[in-house]
Amino acid sequence: MDIATVGGLVGGVFLMFFGVVVNGLSPLQIMDPASAIITFGGGACATIVAGSMSRLFNVPKFSKFAIFPRHADTAQLILTLVQFSERARREGLLSLEDDLANLDEPFLKKGIQLVVDGTDPELVRNILETDMQNIRNRHSEGSTFWGDLGFFLPAFGMLGTLIGLIQMLLSLSTGDPNAIGKGMSAALITTLYGSFGSNLVALPLQKKLLLRDGDEYVVKAIMIEGILSIQSGDNPRIVKDKLSSFLPPSERAALDEAGV
Amino acid sequence: MDIATVGGLVGGVFLMFFGVVVNGLSPLQIMDPASAIITFGGGACATIVAGSMSRLFNVPKFSKFAIFPRHADTAQLILTLVQFSERARREGLLSLEDDLANLDEPFLKKGIQLVVDGTDPELVRNILETDMQNIRNRHSEGSTFWGDLGFFLPAFGMLGTLIGLIQMLLSLSTGDPNAIGKGMSAALITTLYGSFGSNLVALPLQKKLLLRDGDEYVVKAIMIEGILSIQSGDNPRIVKDKLSSFLPPSERAALDEAGV
Amino acid sequence: MDIATVGGLVGGVFLMFFGVVVNGLSPLQIMDPASAIITFGGGACATIVAGSMSRLFNVPKFSKFAIFPRHADTAQLILTLVQFSERARREGLLSLEDDLANLDEPFLKKGIQLVVDGTDPELVRNILETDMQNIRNRHSEGSTFWGDLGFFLPAFGMLGTLIGLIQMLLSLSTGDPNAIGKGMSAALITTLYGSFGSNLVALPLQKKLLLRDGDEYVVKAIMIEGILSIQSGDNPRIVKDKLSSFLPPSERAALDEAGV
Amino acid sequence: MDIATVGGLVGGVFLMFFGVVVNGLSPLQIMDPASAIITFGGGACATIVAGSMSRLFNVPKFSKFAIFPRHADTAQLILTLVQFSERARREGLLSLEDDLANLDEPFLKKGIQLVVDGTDPELVRNILETDMQNIRNRHSEGSTFWGDLGFFLPAFGMLGTLIGLIQMLLSLSTGDPNAIGKGMSAALITTLYGSFGSNLVALPLQKKLLLRDGDEYVVKAIMIEGILSIQSGDNPRIVKDKLSSFLPPSERAALDEAGV
Amino acid sequence: MDIATVGGLVGGVFLMFFGVVVNGLSPLQIMDPASAIITFGGGACATIVAGSMSRLFNVPKFSKFAIFPRHADTAQLILTLVQFSERARREGLLSLEDDLANLDEPFLKKGIQLVVDGTDPELVRNILETDMQNIRNRHSEGSTFWGDLGFFLPAFGMLGTLIGLIQMLLSLSTGDPNAIGKGMSAALITTLYGSFGSNLVALPLQKKLLLRDGDEYVVKAIMIEGILSIQSGDNPRIVKDKLSSFLPPSERAALDEAGV
Repeated sequence: MDIATVGGLVGGVFLMFFGVVVNGLSPLQIMDPASAIITFGGGACATIVAGSMSRLFNVPKFSKFAIFPRHADTAQLILTLVQFSERARREGLLSLEDDLANLDEPFLKKGIQLVVDGTDPELVRNILETDMQNIRNRHSEGSTFWGDLGFFLPAFGMLGTLIGLIQMLLSLSTGDPNAIGKGMSAALITTLYGSFGSNLVALPLQKKLLLRDGDEYVVKAIMIEGILSIQSGDNPRIVKDKLSSFLPPSERAALDEAGV
Repeated sequence: MDIATVGGLVGGVFLMFFGVVVNGLSPLQIMDPASAIITFGGGACATIVAGSMSRLFNVPKFSKFAIFPRHADTAQLILTLVQFSERARREGLLSLEDDLANLDEPFLKKGIQLVVDGTDPELVRNILETDMQNIRNRHSEGSTFWGDLGFFLPAFGMLGTLIGLIQMLLSLSTGDPNAIGKGMSAALITTLYGSFGSNLVALPLQKKLLLRDGDEYVVKAIMIEGILSIQSGDNPRIVKDKLSSFLPPSERAALDEAGV
Repeated sequence: MDIATVGGLVGGVFLMFFGVVVNGLSPLQIMDPASAIITFGGGACATIVAGSMSRLFNVPKFSKFAIFPRHADTAQLILTLVQFSERARREGLLSLEDDLANLDEPFLKKGIQLVVDGTDPELVRNILETDMQNIRNRHSEGSTFWGDLGFFLPAFGMLGTLIGLIQMLLSLSTGDPNAIGKGMSAALITTLYGSFGSNLVALPLQKKLLLRDGDEYVVKAIMIEGILSIQSGDNPRIVKDKLSSFLPPSERAALDEAGV
Repeated sequence: MDIATVGGLVGGVFLMFFGVVVNGLSPLQIMDPASAIITFGGGACATIVAGSMSRLFNVPKFSKFAIFPRHADTAQLILTLVQFSERARREGLLSLEDDLANLDEPFLKKGIQLVVDGTDPELVRNILETDMQNIRNRHSEGSTFWGDLGFFLPAFGMLGTLIGLIQMLLSLSTGDPNAIGKGMSAALITTLYGSFGSNLVALPLQKKLLLRDGDEYVVKAIMIEGILSIQSGDNPRIVKDKLSSFLPPSERAALDEAGV
Repeated sequence: MDIATVGGLVGGVFLMFFGVVVNGLSPLQIMDPASAIITFGGGACATIVAGSMSRLFNVPKFSKFAIFPRHADTAQLILTLVQFSERARREGLLSLEDDLANLDEPFLKKGIQLVVDGTDPELVRNILETDMQNIRNRHSEGSTFWGDLGFFLPAFGMLGTLIGLIQMLLSLSTGDPNAIGKGMSAALITTLYGSFGSNLVALPLQKKLLLRDGDEYVVKAIMIEGILSIQSGDNPRIVKDKLSSFLPPSERAALDEAGV
C-alpha cells in the first residue's frame, strides 16, 4: 500500500478540520450537502461530458494504482532477463520456451514468445513498442479523469458562490448585516469545496497516476531492451550493463550481490 | 448515442437549477436575455473572428460526433484485415480487388486499391499518412471552435459584469442599498453565464472531440499498419499479433474466439 | 474579403454598445480618451519593446491577410501540378521551361526552375523547405504582434484601474459616496478597454493569422510534394492521388470532374 | 541603437505618469521607496535563488543586445559565402586560408578553418552545430533572467499589498475612513510597481532577447549551410539560391544587384 | 557554496520583515503557528499524495545541490579527455586501463571501461545515453517536488483564508469593526504564507535544480562525446575542438593555455 497517498489524503483532511476548529468554527458549520452536490456534481458532469462512459467505469480500476502500486521488482526483472540471455547463448533461443510457462507478466511473455517463434527483430521491436504505446494510452485515462475533475471543480465551486452572491445581493434590502454575513459565508462554501477537492484530491491523484505510468514505462522499456538483447545474442555481461542503467546506483549493488 | 455527453449536459443544467432553487431564488431571477446576448453573442463574435465562416458552418457536422460517435468496431476491423492478409497470401494481392466493392470505409478502400494497383509500399505509406494527417487537421476544426469559445466566453461574461458595475457605481449616489444590490446581482449574471457556458458546455465538448479524434487516429493507424502488412505479405498470425496490440486486453479475447 | 473577421469585429462592438445601453448608460459614459491612451498606449509600448520597429511597420501588411485572404485555389493548384507531371513524362522535364513564364506564384516558379535546371532532388527539397520555413518565420511576425498585444493590454488596463483606485482611496476622506462611485467607475474603464481590446480584437486576430499561416503551409506543402513527384517522374495518377489527400472530400469531387 | 526598445520603455513610463496626473494625483503620491524595495528587492531575491551569481553578473552583457543589436548584415554575409564558394571551386579549398585573416566573426572563422584543415564534413557539421547550440544555451541566460523576474515581480507586489492590507485591517478600529483609504492606497502601490515592472520592462525584454536569439540562430544557420556547401563544392549559383531563402524577398533584390 | 541560493533566500526573508516593520507592524503580528500548519501542512500533504515516500526521503539529498553544487570543473574534464585521446592514439585503447583507477566519476569510469573492453561503439553510446537519461529522471525528482509544492502552497493559503472569511462573516452580527478587521487580517495570513513560501522558496528552488540538471547534462554530454571520439581514434586536436564548443569563450582560453 502506498502510504504517501493514504497518509497525505488523511493528513490533508485532518488539517482542514484543524483549520476550521482553530478558527472557532464547528466542523458542522462548513458541512452543507447542497453545496457539495452543486460543486462535486457539477464538476463530475463536466468531466463526464469531457470523457466517456467507459472511461468513467474504468476510474476505480486505474485509480487503485494510486494506493496499491503494481509492485514491479525492477532488480528481479533485470536478473531474470540476464539469466534468459545466459541460457539463450548456451542452449539457443528455443530453450526459452520452457521458461514461458513460469512468466506471469503478459508483456514479457508475449515478447519472449515472439523471440522463440523466430520473428524478425525489427518486427519484435515494432510490435512491443506499439503494445507499450497502447498500454500507456489506456492507462492515461486515469490521470486524464482526475486532471479534468481538478480543472472543473474550482469552476463549479465558483459558480455556486456566484449564485449565492446573487441571492445575497438581491436580499440586501433587508439591511440585516447578520443575514448578509450568513449569505456570503454560505456562498463561499462551494468555493472552499471546489478548491479543496481539486488541490488535495484530484490534482495530486493526477500527478500520482502520471508518476505510476512513468514507472511502468521504465519497466516496459527494460523488458523491450532486454528481449531485443537476448534475441541479438548479446553477451550477458553487456545485457546486465545495459539494463542496470535503469536502476538507481543503490539498487545496482543488489544486482551485483546476486552474482550475475 | 453517447449518453456521457447527453447525460452530463442534462445533469449539469439540472444541478445549476437545483443550486438556484436551494438558494431560495426562482430560476426566472437568473434568466436575463440581455445578459445572454452580451455574453454568448460576444464570445461567438470573438470565436468567429478567430476562425472562418466555413469552420462555423462545419460546427454542427463536427460536433454531432460528440453525441453520435462513429461506431468503429475495432475488433471487426482487425478481423477483416487479417482475413485480407490470409487471402492475399493464398491467392495473391490482386484477389483483394473482389473485396473492394464490399468496403464502405473510404480510407481503407483507398489503401487496398493502392495495394491492388501495385503501388510502391513507401508511396502507399506516404499517401495514407498524408491523408490521415489532413483528415485530422480538418476534424480538429471542431475541437478548436469549442476551445476558442470556452476561452472567450468567461472574458465576455466579465466584460458584461464590468459594464454593470460601472452603471451601478455611477448611480451609487442614490444611496439605496436595494438598488445597489440589484445592480450588482444583475452585473454578476453575465459572469455566471460565461463561466457556465465555458465549463459545462464549451471546454468539455472540446475535450470530448479531441478524444474522438484520438479514437479515429487509432482506427486509421490500424488500417495503415494492416494494409502495409498485407502488402509485404506478412504471416496472418503476425498481422493479428501486430494489430491486436491496439486493443485493450478484454477485447483481444473476442478476437481469439473469432478463431483467427 | 473574409466576412468572418469583419462581421465578428463589427458584431462584437455592436454587442458592447448594446450592453452599455441595456444597462441604462449612454455610450458616452464609457468613452474616456485618457483611459484609452493609458491602456492602448501602454499595451502598444510593451509590445514595441517586445518586438522590433520593422515588425511594427509590417503589422498592416501581415494583418491585411486577416481580412483579405490570399485566395489560393488549392484544387486548381493540384490540377496545374498534375498537368505539369503529364507533360514532363511525355515531353521531358525541360519542356516545363515554357510554362514558367505563366506562373506568378514565386515559390512554385522557383521550384519548377530548380527542376528544369536539373538540380539534385535532395537539394531541391532542401532549398524549398528552407524557403518555406523562412516564409513561415516572417509571417509569424503578424500573429506574434497580436498575441503580444493581447497579452499586455489587460495588464495595462489593470494598471490604469490601480492608479484610479489609489486616487479614489486617497480622496476617501470626503466621504461623498457619489464621488467614490464615480472614481471607482472611472477606474474600471481601463480594465474594460484592456479586456475588450484583447478578447475581441488582439487574441482573435492572432488566432486568425495563425490559421492563415496554417493554410499557407498546406499550399506550400502541396507545391513541394508536387514538384518532387514531377521530378521523380511519378505516374500522373499517383501525383493526383498523393496531392488530393490534402483536399477535403467535397473538393476532391471537383478535381475528378476536371477529368484528370 | 534599437529605438523600439528605448522608445517603448520611455513611452510606457511617460504614459504611466500621464495616467497619474490625469487622475489628479501628483507623481510623488505614487513614489514610495519602501514599496519599491519590497517589490523589486523581493523579485530580485527570488530571481537570484532561481539562477546563479554568474548569470546575474552576465545580465548587463546579455541585456545590452536588447538596445544595441549585433548588426549582422545578412545579405553581406551571404555575398561573402558565395564569393568563398566561387574561389574554392576555382582555386581549391586551401585558397580560403588567405581569407581567414580578414574574418572577424569567430564562428565563421572556425568553420572555414575546419574546412581548410580538411576535416570530415560530418564532423564539421557536428562541431558547428554543437557550438551553435552552446552559444544559444549561454545567450538564453539573458531571456531567462528577465522571464524569471517578470514572473516573480507581480507575486512580490501582491505580497507587499497583503502586508499593507493586514496592517490596515488591524487598525480598522480607529474607524477613520481617511486612514483606511490611505492604508489601502499605500498597500496597492506595491502591486502597481510589480505589475508595471513585469509588464513594461521584464517580460517585454524577455521577448526581445528571445527575438535576438532567433535572429542570431538564423545567421549561424546561414553560416553552417554556407560552409558545408563550400566544402561539398556546390555550384555558387546553388549556394546563393540556398542561402537567399533565409532573406525576406525585399532583401533578395539587393543580393541580385550585387551581381552574384 | 552557492551564495546566490543562500543570499537570495536570506535577502528575501529580510525584505519581508522590512516590509512588515515599515508598515508599522511587529513581526510577531504576522506570526501565527496555526496558519503556518494549515498552509505548509496542507501544501505538503498534497505534494506527498502527488509524489511518493521515496521521493520525499530523497528531497534533502537532491535539494542540497541547490546550495552545494557538484563542482564539475568542465575545462579540467575536457583536458583529461584530450589527454586520454592522445594516449589512446599513441599506446592503444587498452593503455587507458591504467587511468581507470584514478577516475572517481562513475559515469566517465563506466564509459572508459566499456571502451577498454572493446564494446561496440553503437552499444557504448546506447548504454551511456540510457544511463544519462535515467540519471536525469532520478534527479528531476528534486525539481518536481519543489514545483509541486510551489503549485499547491498558494492554493492551501487561499483555503485557509476562505475558512477565516467564513468564520468572520458568520460573526458579522456583532457589528464590531475591530473584530471584523482582526478576523480578516488573520484570514489573510495564510495567503501571505502560501504566496511567500511558493514565490521565494519553492518555485525558485525548482528553477535552480532544473538549472543544475542542465549543467550536469552538459558535463555528461561532454563525457559521451569525448569517450566516443577516443574510441573512434579521432585526432586529439579535433577532440579538443569538438569538446571546447561546450565551454564559454572565456574558459576556452584557459584550455589553450594548458597547452593541449
